[in-house]
Amino acid sequence: MSDVQTLVGSMAAAAVEAAGEVAKLSSQIKDEVLTRTAERILESRSLLQQQNEKDLRAAEQKGLPAPFLDRLTLSDSVIEGMASGLQEVACLPDPVGSVPGMWKRPNGLTVGKIRIPLGVVGMIYESRPNVTIDAAGLCFKSGNAVILRGGSEALHSNLALAEVFQESLAAFSLPRAAVQVIRVPDREAVSELIKLEEELDLIIPRGGEELIRFVAHNSRVPVLKHYKGVCHAFVDAGADLETARAVCLNSKVQRPGVCNALEGLLVHRDVAQEFLPPMADEFKKNGVEIRGCPRTCRIIPEARPAAAEDFGREFLDLILAVRVVDDLDQALEHVKQYGSRHTEVILSNDYARTNRFLGEVDASLVLANASTRFNDGAQLGLGAEIGISTSKLHAYGPMGLEELTSTKFIAYGQGQCREG
Amino acid sequence: MSDVQTLVGSMAAAAVEAAGEVAKLSSQIKDEVLTRTAERILESRSLLQQQNEKDLRAAEQKGLPAPFLDRLTLSDSVIEGMASGLQEVACLPDPVGSVPGMWKRPNGLTVGKIRIPLGVVGMIYESRPNVTIDAAGLCFKSGNAVILRGGSEALHSNLALAEVFQESLAAFSLPRAAVQVIRVPDREAVSELIKLEEELDLIIPRGGEELIRFVAHNSRVPVLKHYKGVCHAFVDAGADLETARAVCLNSKVQRPGVCNALEGLLVHRDVAQEFLPPMADEFKKNGVEIRGCPRTCRIIPEARPAAAEDFGREFLDLILAVRVVDDLDQALEHVKQYGSRHTEVILSNDYARTNRFLGEVDASLVLANASTRFNDGAQLGLGAEIGISTSKLHAYGPMGLEELTSTKFIAYGQGQCREG
Repeated sequence: MSDVQTLVGSMAAAAVEAAGEVAKLSSQIKDEVLTRTAERILESRSLLQQQNEKDLRAAEQKGLPAPFLDRLTLSDSVIEGMASGLQEVACLPDPVGSVPGMWKRPNGLTVGKIRIPLGVVGMIYESRPNVTIDAAGLCFKSGNAVILRGGSEALHSNLALAEVFQESLAAFSLPRAAVQVIRVPDREAVSELIKLEEELDLIIPRGGEELIRFVAHNSRVPVLKHYKGVCHAFVDAGADLETARAVCLNSKVQRPGVCNALEGLLVHRDVAQEFLPPMADEFKKNGVEIRGCPRTCRIIPEARPAAAEDFGREFLDLILAVRVVDDLDQALEHVKQYGSRHTEVILSNDYARTNRFLGEVDASLVLANASTRFNDGAQLGLGAEIGISTSKLHAYGPMGLEELTSTKFIAYGQGQCREG
Repeated sequence: MSDVQTLVGSMAAAAVEAAGEVAKLSSQIKDEVLTRTAERILESRSLLQQQNEKDLRAAEQKGLPAPFLDRLTLSDSVIEGMASGLQEVACLPDPVGSVPGMWKRPNGLTVGKIRIPLGVVGMIYESRPNVTIDAAGLCFKSGNAVILRGGSEALHSNLALAEVFQESLAAFSLPRAAVQVIRVPDREAVSELIKLEEELDLIIPRGGEELIRFVAHNSRVPVLKHYKGVCHAFVDAGADLETARAVCLNSKVQRPGVCNALEGLLVHRDVAQEFLPPMADEFKKNGVEIRGCPRTCRIIPEARPAAAEDFGREFLDLILAVRVVDDLDQALEHVKQYGSRHTEVILSNDYARTNRFLGEVDASLVLANASTRFNDGAQLGLGAEIGISTSKLHAYGPMGLEELTSTKFIAYGQGQCREG
């Protein structure tokens, strides 16, 4: 066994032990730990920023690009955001122990489903160190132990953040192993972690497509993956075009670098001539580059002709692929071919077509007449989220506290035996 | 590409296409197809038995054991059971399109979760050909396409059964590819099927531990596994001993060869002397061999001393491991160490200990004062089941129609845009 194998193995064993204890905690204790951790994060600001500084200096020396350094920075506002995030999670209802249903069988057996923690969650992510606290808070509140593996560039920051959480745990005589960060930068640690099918109950990879694909292909532990978000809006004939423009603009520019930003715009040919020119002006004012199909380019002469690969591409930037389609069927076909099952929007005032779109599109969130940017746990009313799943098993869409739990069956009998 | 790769690949592509159509079907059409298939199965009895005869003759020539031949046989009662099973599934409520929840956000956006099919399910199983029809019926009713891969020894039977289902589909102008059986016996077909992460949404392996482990370790498609059932009953101090004996007997002997049969009995030392001798008599009358811990053997002299590996073993036979324990904690520890997260029972009249057992035991079904044999979809009131999951993601316990679906979010807006 290599040192890394030994380390990851012993962390996993400690996590299993800790998970047993965390699963039994009352909501009150869990919320006190979360509140205390939030306070400690604010108190530890200078220490956290010192450790973060080490990561930042090393990243600068490696010549990593500015947006990377930006994501890596534990600024005052990021630190305050982590603390307020924990406070919010403390205020959310505890899913553990809730009973989604209970019923009586004809033989008198009372059968119920009760919500239980998953056990040990492995979280693999990239540069943002605040994920360490967000994920730890959600896993802890849902009664799970978590093993965190952030980007090696953020190692000092992540270890310091976990240490703050662990001090709160220790102050309540709870096992520090409920929240652990893998303290070696070796890539081997990920390969080891995803093999531990006996100890881990779930792996959540968050980050680039390559990382997610590596984890999905090699994990023996169940994986909830969140691949890219290639989100579309379809502007239907007869839509309120002013509303449609506002929604498309918001979907594209409100935060272009995230997975629920708009990447493809489909416009019904009957409204293209009326809809597109003012839309193009709005986009231009907001710095959005349009890559259009031939029909789009005829209507918007400044648009750059789209290459084949521009459709279905996750730009994560102020670039938008635009296509004029013949009808709803062509729009549905396009979404099926190029969408990533993340977020799809119809802008329409037609009852039948809106219903068809909501019904037939296979995506974790399908909206009528609202921005793609609403695909987010907090925006949809689930509270904080640990990720957005684009696979259908267990969770499809934003994963909040409830999605970090399972249910078991319980039954209250009076000596019932089975006959047939 | 090998021939098998080509075959499995084209089956999967056809299944994806078919799944799109099946997902949209009304409950009424689906139920008519199921009813028609049930009728056709009864009408095709002699044809089915002819094809089954080919499998039986080949299995006999291979010298396969009698219980295997028994499981392989499409007797009149198995055929009638498949037909009535389909009729029952037709009568169950359709999960697709049901709305588990809908709510309004402060900005007026109405958000809901709506139940949708998973897509394409791969089912890998062993000798019983009736699984072909049971699984096909459940997958079809839940709006999924299914690719079935039974044991190679049952190939003629399985193909004939799928053909009957496909004829019903064709009679309703529905795609035959909604229910497909892989028609080559090569092991390679399984390895190919579980690689198709783009086409398949779920793999369900049912059968021996080795098969399940192979699938779980090599699949790129999410797997819902059902490992062995090592089920325990704990007879607590102060339990109603007569009830306890009846429940333990039923759990052990009502059908000893299945996963929810009792394999380990734990008895509180305070009642061991009173409980065990009459229990041993009952077991003896029913042909059950007892393998006991030293304390058990002192109380029941005919008991055979248990070997270390008898605890935690899935006998699937009239054999039972029995241990006297000091208290509830020792019983919980035993269940944690040797149980398989399947089914665990406490026989007790003590409020606090019963609650602890129900709360702390991590198993898909935990019962108080009722037989382990109730861990079954129909017995718990879910209708027919496609398997019993012992992993916690997506489904833990019996998987019925609802567990063959996912949910997506839908949102009805009036032009909402995101601000923060």
